[in-house]
Amino acid sequence: MTVLILTSEEDVTADMVVLRLGEAGVPVLRLDPADLTNGVALSGEYVQGAYDGHLSVGGRLVSMNGLRSVWVRRPGAAAARAAHPSAWLTEESTQALYGMLRCGETRWMNHPDAARRARYKPWQLHLAQCAGLPVPATLITTFPQAARKFAERFPDLVVKPVSGAHPQEPPRAVPTSRVAPDTDFSAVAFGPTLLQRRIAKRADIRLTVVGDTLLAARKPTAPDAHPDDVDVRFAPSLSPWLPADVPARVAEGVRRYMEGAQLAYGAFDFAEDADGIWWFLECNQSGQFGFVEMDTGQPIAATIANWLAGEGGSGHRCAEGGRSAAS
Amino acid sequence: MTVLILTSEEDVTADMVVLRLGEAGVPVLRLDPADLTNGVALSGEYVQGAYDGHLSVGGRLVSMNGLRSVWVRRPGAAAARAAHPSAWLTEESTQALYGMLRCGETRWMNHPDAARRARYKPWQLHLAQCAGLPVPATLITTFPQAARKFAERFPDLVVKPVSGAHPQEPPRAVPTSRVAPDTDFSAVAFGPTLLQRRIAKRADIRLTVVGDTLLAARKPTAPDAHPDDVDVRFAPSLSPWLPADVPARVAEGVRRYMEGAQLAYGAFDFAEDADGIWWFLECNQSGQFGFVEMDTGQPIAATIANWLAGEGGSGHRCAEGGRSAAS
Repeated sequence: MTVLILTSEEDVTADMVVLRLGEAGVPVLRLDPADLTNGVALSGEYVQGAYDGHLSVGGRLVSMNGLRSVWVRRPGAAAARAAHPSAWLTEESTQALYGMLRCGETRWMNHPDAARRARYKPWQLHLAQCAGLPVPATLITTFPQAARKFAERFPDLVVKPVSGAHPQEPPRAVPTSRVAPDTDFSAVAFGPTLLQRRIAKRADIRLTVVGDTLLAARKPTAPDAHPDDVDVRFAPSLSPWLPADVPARVAEGVRRYMEGAQLAYGAFDFAEDADGIWWFLECNQSGQFGFVEMDTGQPIAATIANWLAGEGGSGHRCAEGGRSAAS
Repeated sequence: MTVLILTSEEDVTADMVVLRLGEAGVPVLRLDPADLTNGVALSGEYVQGAYDGHLSVGGRLVSMNGLRSVWVRRPGAAAARAAHPSAWLTEESTQALYGMLRCGETRWMNHPDAARRARYKPWQLHLAQCAGLPVPATLITTFPQAARKFAERFPDLVVKPVSGAHPQEPPRAVPTSRVAPDTDFSAVAFGPTLLQRRIAKRADIRLTVVGDTLLAARKPTAPDAHPDDVDVRFAPSLSPWLPADVPARVAEGVRRYMEGAQLAYGAFDFAEDADGIWWFLECNQSGQFGFVEMDTGQPIAATIANWLAGEGGSGHRCAEGGRSAAS
């Protein structure tokens, strides 16, 4: 039973996991969809009511029915490195590869449908609410008047993108910024704006979830930090990430969130306030973990390898219903 | 309780359904996401563990919590007609609109996740197999040798795209074509190719499914039809579509398929052979129905209107788990 890893060639984070799987003697097939028709080949047959599929990388043939799990790390666009790449070839190759992989009952980290849904931040906020996690008061609006009223109720606000990174090439992270007290909200009418009550934080929390395992890291806010330094990704910091315990109530909420989102992996960001409350900011289903493992020594890569190596994938079968014998 | 219809302004098929809903006195909000920030506005608030959202079209305000159903017909790209359109604005607006609509428990025709998954043809074929529908022997491959062997086993083949329409602007439908007996399959190595046993058909079947309702239409193949005229969309035809009964076994399989695909609407194409067997070709989750209704007089638009008007949407609520009172 092979673990399939979909990622690009240069991915040191994947390397860490591949190393662990190798140590455990688990067969791994590493495949970049970009290499389709140029080193990577596929074939699937639907005959007499049954499906049978294969993948080949550099001449090594693996049955799709015998996959233990699929890790969607950082796959390139399908057939991007083909001899004659085109939008049409990418579309055909994407449908063929992912369409066939979807035929099995393989375990995914994360399933493409769950991964896609998990990116909707408005849905994240609501799911966190439903899971019982504290969510800072948030408004997403194109109504300037709604923004003004919200700023009256919650005078200390930050603004952040509704979606993730700016879609330029390469993608650019847009920092969360503090909203000045005298802000004119007229321009809100020109694009959806996400305003959120600023949490006066004493620490940032990064909680990495792998299956049932929760690994939390904490970075204390410097005592002389400026309140405008909202975004931990861009704020100056001398302190490393340190391992932290997860409060029982948070653990419960996070497990409910993961279940609701149908995710096997998630990287949660929280802001810890002076009362020790962890405020949900977001959950990134493809969040990096290398920097946390470096700082804390937490065995995240090993935990991912264990999850991928675990049994539980039921291989290939029909979920329900009979089969047709005709062909 | 309002029905939300996401579609472009010029959509005569949607007009037919809107007319029916109007006759039934059901409130309708018709919205093209392309008009976001230019006639269409949105706002959503996450405060004290609860979510509350609104949409506004031309000054008319509707609560997202009070939506009866959402019909995703032919929505434009979000904010495409904004004063200053950009890829970034489209991304932000898409996330805001669909992210908020996903927060409710509204009934969708079809839910965006189900709609997206339903487009994977390799998955369609397998789901049809699992549902017990007869599927013609099919191969999707980049191995020339696999194609050659398949052609030996099934000498009369057609070839069709793995994905749908060619992604040019405007999209171009690629016809299903017959494979010549002496075909050289070497070029299969350059792109995934879908080969399928040709069904010697005596009729084409279009089965439109709306919720629990199955409406079948049948177009007999002309007695002098050439076997190369495989694709009903491109073949010459004098015969109209006629209403047809759905065999009980097919109805059972189709219902299983719809349940497995989590679709509320689907347009199935079958080829009927000389023995009367309906061979599954595909299920288009956004397939047109106007031409069928025109030919057969079947009340498809009215059935869609009934489904959209029906109760059953549970409005806004958390699926599970407690709520956080913090904010």
